[in-house]
Amino acid sequence: MSAAPRLQGVLSPVVTPFGADGAPSPARLLDHCRWLLSQDVGLAVFGTNSEGNSLSLLEKRQLLDHLAAGGIPGQRLMPGTGTCAIPETVELSRHAVQLGCAGVLVLPPFYYKGTGDEGLFAYFARVIEEVADARLRVYLYHIPPVAQVGIGPALIERLLKAYPGVVAGIKDSSGDAGNTALLLREFQPAGFDVFAGNETLLLSTLRGGGAGCITATGNVNPAAIARLYRSWQAPDADAQQAQLDAVRAAFQAFPIIAAMKWALARATGDASWAQVRPPLVALAPDQAQALAQRLDALGFAMPRTEALAAA
Amino acid sequence: MSAAPRLQGVLSPVVTPFGADGAPSPARLLDHCRWLLSQDVGLAVFGTNSEGNSLSLLEKRQLLDHLAAGGIPGQRLMPGTGTCAIPETVELSRHAVQLGCAGVLVLPPFYYKGTGDEGLFAYFARVIEEVADARLRVYLYHIPPVAQVGIGPALIERLLKAYPGVVAGIKDSSGDAGNTALLLREFQPAGFDVFAGNETLLLSTLRGGGAGCITATGNVNPAAIARLYRSWQAPDADAQQAQLDAVRAAFQAFPIIAAMKWALARATGDASWAQVRPPLVALAPDQAQALAQRLDALGFAMPRTEALAAA
Repeated sequence: MSAAPRLQGVLSPVVTPFGADGAPSPARLLDHCRWLLSQDVGLAVFGTNSEGNSLSLLEKRQLLDHLAAGGIPGQRLMPGTGTCAIPETVELSRHAVQLGCAGVLVLPPFYYKGTGDEGLFAYFARVIEEVADARLRVYLYHIPPVAQVGIGPALIERLLKAYPGVVAGIKDSSGDAGNTALLLREFQPAGFDVFAGNETLLLSTLRGGGAGCITATGNVNPAAIARLYRSWQAPDADAQQAQLDAVRAAFQAFPIIAAMKWALARATGDASWAQVRPPLVALAPDQAQALAQRLDALGFAMPRTEALAAA
Repeated sequence: MSAAPRLQGVLSPVVTPFGADGAPSPARLLDHCRWLLSQDVGLAVFGTNSEGNSLSLLEKRQLLDHLAAGGIPGQRLMPGTGTCAIPETVELSRHAVQLGCAGVLVLPPFYYKGTGDEGLFAYFARVIEEVADARLRVYLYHIPPVAQVGIGPALIERLLKAYPGVVAGIKDSSGDAGNTALLLREFQPAGFDVFAGNETLLLSTLRGGGAGCITATGNVNPAAIARLYRSWQAPDADAQQAQLDAVRAAFQAFPIIAAMKWALARATGDASWAQVRPPLVALAPDQAQALAQRLDALGFAMPRTEALAAA
């Protein structure tokens, strides 16, 4: 049984649109995914910035079904499937594999602090063995600032030894460039794909032999980020990186999910894009105004309205 | 529609037995619950020490159904129903209410750090309004050392004002006696029931007018803890508290869930009680030996074998 091609390049934790009733909107998610693909950005649906942990298992299954039925190619999909409960992580991961997803992004069981590598190894091992499908490709999701439970080099080494080929890579959202460099040095040569946790480390990650990045702001600035991925050896690569950083900084000055959704609402004229699910909070009017001023000062405009109008 | 009597006294986050296949064992959970009730300890199933967040929504629904079918009275049940995803918290809370549970213990959406009280209020409000049942009684679960997201006085005050009667109390697992004292002073007089997060603060909580405690070690030392609850005004109350503290300290010197399950395995002769679900790890042999020595030194024996044999 042959696996899908390896994921690489720029992916985005796709923001999840909600309707007036608070439920996710499958059609609008599909539309946004199509637009991201048209910009050369892959789909890490149900990530942190997708409010993935705010969605029920059933909602995630149904959204994934809708994307597959809508023709989104599995080889561009890396859904987040990690929960604190092994049976749910197994169910969603298996569903993703059966739909042809090229990989799954798996959080550690983040409620449990201080269990140590022994327990985390057992968690990932149980998930992999219960999914029991040779097509499974697990990307480890290292995001200690949020999860408070990290995935360190010793655990990676042990998992790679136990499940070579299945344990396929990592999203390093530690925010620590030194950690990304270490992962690139230690594990990338063995085919363990290192993705930077956002585009601010995209150029350095590619120069270190990494696979790309998985970044929130891929939702709002996809073309420019994808362009740096394709042209990172060009003379203007550092200048491109600096421009990406400036846009990132503007969004990051606010609660970033609410900020991106506000920008999508503005670009599409669809106010419901601004909705977040509690405990997240939508941007306040003064925050929105401040963000607009920062984006305008950068000459940043989302090339989004027409794409949506045509959909 | 009249609600069940208020929960009070000593409750325990009931440890969850797993079988050889890694699945929870409904019959053994029912048996353990019956034993706890016989010792005058109520049932906070699916709490932290129940490995509640390691169980799927489906597993929790089925276990609750099994307890109800087995005749466990709802007025002694306070299942943990809080997850990061509102639809799942709503579904499990509604199911609990429909089965007659006197209350539900609700964690904040713990994946999301730093959203502030605005977002947390919106989360609890949405849950309460979507459950939409006058019988719902919400107990807030404040456990910042684990959840990393706390429930402070300002949020409690706002929730009490918006949902009087429904917001019924709190389990304070902050480990901060000052916080428990503050809650007792500020909110207990208004009928908001304060439960200490473990028995080490039981006596001080009762002296402050509180409702009792919800404690892990209720699983292994229920009768003595329940006795202090009933006799807290007796002359030997402080001596009782000191004895409880010594037993608690013995279990707490080890990963406490694994330690309690090891003790249950020893007391019942059912080795499978020692099983935990990853990422938790069972006690190592040297840890088990050290725990046994500490318990023996205290003259502590679980009066458990016969109860189980008779079941």
